[in-house]
Amino acid sequence: MRMVIEDAVREAGTDPIFAVAQKASEAKEKYGKENVIDSTLGALMDDEGNLVTFNEVYNTLKNLPDDKIAAYADIGGIEEFLEAVPEACFRDQRPDAYIKAVATPGGTGAVRNAIANYSNYGDKILIPDWHWAPYRTIADEHKRGYQLFSLFNDEGRFNLESYKKEFKKLLNDQGRILTILNTPAHNPTGFTINDDEWDKIIEFWIEEAKNNPDKQIVVLNDIAYVDFAKEGSRKFMKKLEHLPENILPLYAFSASKGYTMYGLRNGALICAAPTQEIADEFEASAIYSNRANWSNGTRGAMQVLADIINDPTSYERFLSEQTANREMLRKRGDALVEECKNVGLNICEYDDGFFMSIPVDNPQEITEALYDDNIFLIALSGGIRVALCAVSEDKCRKIPKAVKEAIDKRDNKYES
Amino acid sequence: MRMVIEDAVREAGTDPIFAVAQKASEAKEKYGKENVIDSTLGALMDDEGNLVTFNEVYNTLKNLPDDKIAAYADIGGIEEFLEAVPEACFRDQRPDAYIKAVATPGGTGAVRNAIANYSNYGDKILIPDWHWAPYRTIADEHKRGYQLFSLFNDEGRFNLESYKKEFKKLLNDQGRILTILNTPAHNPTGFTINDDEWDKIIEFWIEEAKNNPDKQIVVLNDIAYVDFAKEGSRKFMKKLEHLPENILPLYAFSASKGYTMYGLRNGALICAAPTQEIADEFEASAIYSNRANWSNGTRGAMQVLADIINDPTSYERFLSEQTANREMLRKRGDALVEECKNVGLNICEYDDGFFMSIPVDNPQEITEALYDDNIFLIALSGGIRVALCAVSEDKCRKIPKAVKEAIDKRDNKYES
Repeated sequence: MRMVIEDAVREAGTDPIFAVAQKASEAKEKYGKENVIDSTLGALMDDEGNLVTFNEVYNTLKNLPDDKIAAYADIGGIEEFLEAVPEACFRDQRPDAYIKAVATPGGTGAVRNAIANYSNYGDKILIPDWHWAPYRTIADEHKRGYQLFSLFNDEGRFNLESYKKEFKKLLNDQGRILTILNTPAHNPTGFTINDDEWDKIIEFWIEEAKNNPDKQIVVLNDIAYVDFAKEGSRKFMKKLEHLPENILPLYAFSASKGYTMYGLRNGALICAAPTQEIADEFEASAIYSNRANWSNGTRGAMQVLADIINDPTSYERFLSEQTANREMLRKRGDALVEECKNVGLNICEYDDGFFMSIPVDNPQEITEALYDDNIFLIALSGGIRVALCAVSEDKCRKIPKAVKEAIDKRDNKYES
Repeated sequence: MRMVIEDAVREAGTDPIFAVAQKASEAKEKYGKENVIDSTLGALMDDEGNLVTFNEVYNTLKNLPDDKIAAYADIGGIEEFLEAVPEACFRDQRPDAYIKAVATPGGTGAVRNAIANYSNYGDKILIPDWHWAPYRTIADEHKRGYQLFSLFNDEGRFNLESYKKEFKKLLNDQGRILTILNTPAHNPTGFTINDDEWDKIIEFWIEEAKNNPDKQIVVLNDIAYVDFAKEGSRKFMKKLEHLPENILPLYAFSASKGYTMYGLRNGALICAAPTQEIADEFEASAIYSNRANWSNGTRGAMQVLADIINDPTSYERFLSEQTANREMLRKRGDALVEECKNVGLNICEYDDGFFMSIPVDNPQEITEALYDDNIFLIALSGGIRVALCAVSEDKCRKIPKAVKEAIDKRDNKYES
């Protein structure tokens, strides 16, 4: 007897990333953690492999009166949070638009609400070929499909041509489009769409919006890694203002990485709407979705973010912790990119962030071969993901050579 | 231009309960909180109107190392929590069944996953006429409908006849049925299905299961208030074992009330399945749904619940806080019931819990009239809800007379 509905039958078994992380843990136990490169999980670790937790965040949390943690938040989020979170999202690049925020459990909840409220049942959402896999899971659970475009062109930069082609096809087939861009510091490649590319994308949207005045163009910016990208990476937000009325920019804000609040489930879906009506409509739908899925968010986490941002001294302490860790990550990224060049290993454009990707055929074969060297990386469909967030600069320097050798060995084996 | 999809257009505006709570707050400011009866919100308050927060819970939370709060939980929940939560749910009434738990944001997330995975798109779920309104919101968001049955018969006890009638009709019309019972200490009436009633309900399910061997009967027990019900209120859980294979008992466990973790969003959907396969299938679907909606739960809250339950001394301290508060609530309930009798006010059967309900026509008219007496109650569709969780025993004693007078005054006005 099958008890779940047919649509909800799912494969059991451990998440593949978690399974590799488990292997890495066993190796660390056996060989000592200094001898193992565990580059599996997407959380920022210090050079000793311990999770980075910002003192300002956890001191603030632990000093909250119990009832500020225990009480229900309002369905849409507590007021202080909803006022503070646009600052966390936009900083000095706040667009001139009708901005509203609704709290969600992390970035996932924000993506979920965007898909549920801005794409129709059966529609396809537009995502890049290199993408965070849960976009597909979220779409699938809600009976939406997805259409891929090629993220990179031959120069390794944003493939505007492919994007335009798939966008137009979808907008032609459907009454509306929801397109997700994950930038800056894209997961899993670390790619950031630059300002020139943004200008061209926006120009294209405006053209499409004008050519299809009855169709809705909803642009979801997943900015989960924005606080680990270079200064200036928020510039595109200010560009997304004064657009035609049928273009709606949304932001999936996550406090997981930028505030080291992964396990506190704190985020928001934020709109930068062209009109008050569209902003109000956004809020009403998002609040309804909250009520119908998780009711409300983690009150204490919202309070912490608001308290930090509203207290200049606290905010400064917080920002200096964030900056120090961003610098640490940048050094790891520089080391990786440099060593990849040195050994002639081709990588996807890496600008910033927690991950870097190495395009390669049959990546699983390579990641498995590397287990023998006590190097644990994640095989994606189009390549290998290196989680530089999780390993020291020293260890980052060792990865490219090992990967290159494993690829060469595999390829030579097949040639001979 | 409308940007959300047609299905997601929602009415804006403040939640009606929150709006009345706001009025009550203003009255407290103006007249002093001792002169206002604010019986609006569904959270346990002490006699001074402050939120009850269990010391054992918040001391444990604040003593956790930061990384135990900051890290992501596994998608289905951390292992210690998943092992501990069946104890929190079943205590000494653990059924002999294949039990699996998957963490969710509060009871809401559990109800959401049950509806999404155990009812088909377009199906109706079966709920009582007196019910927690978000059942409808959750069903609606996921494109399920609902069918009401009459909760009470003429004697004010469980209306088995109405239940059977609507159940059979639905099971006849649909390929399966999902039925939600909210007991013990039902919201909004405080009604608890007794053991005799349970025996008859179970007998009926077994009969229906045998008569419809190809149809699935999924029974979701919403036990949000179980820890504020009398000893023995878990007995039904042990009855729900060794059932036919096409009956699946599920439990929506919430740590909101029983652990004063409202704002921490901690709960679980738990199955007590007749076979290993059905339990495994349950887990795989629920984990997928987690990933596709909120990713994972509040790690620190899971850790606290597990740590308390796994440490006998801590668990004892916790239970004694819980017991003391249950006693406080019971005294309020006794006072209310007694005064209702004294003034001849008819109420729904109240056994236990945060709420009591007074069936009355046009309840809004009555609750509004009571604003002048600085009494703030909530109008439901079929009556008035008194949140005894929120007011002292003394204030509880004052409510029935005031309500009775307001009803009499209204009715006399129309008669004259």
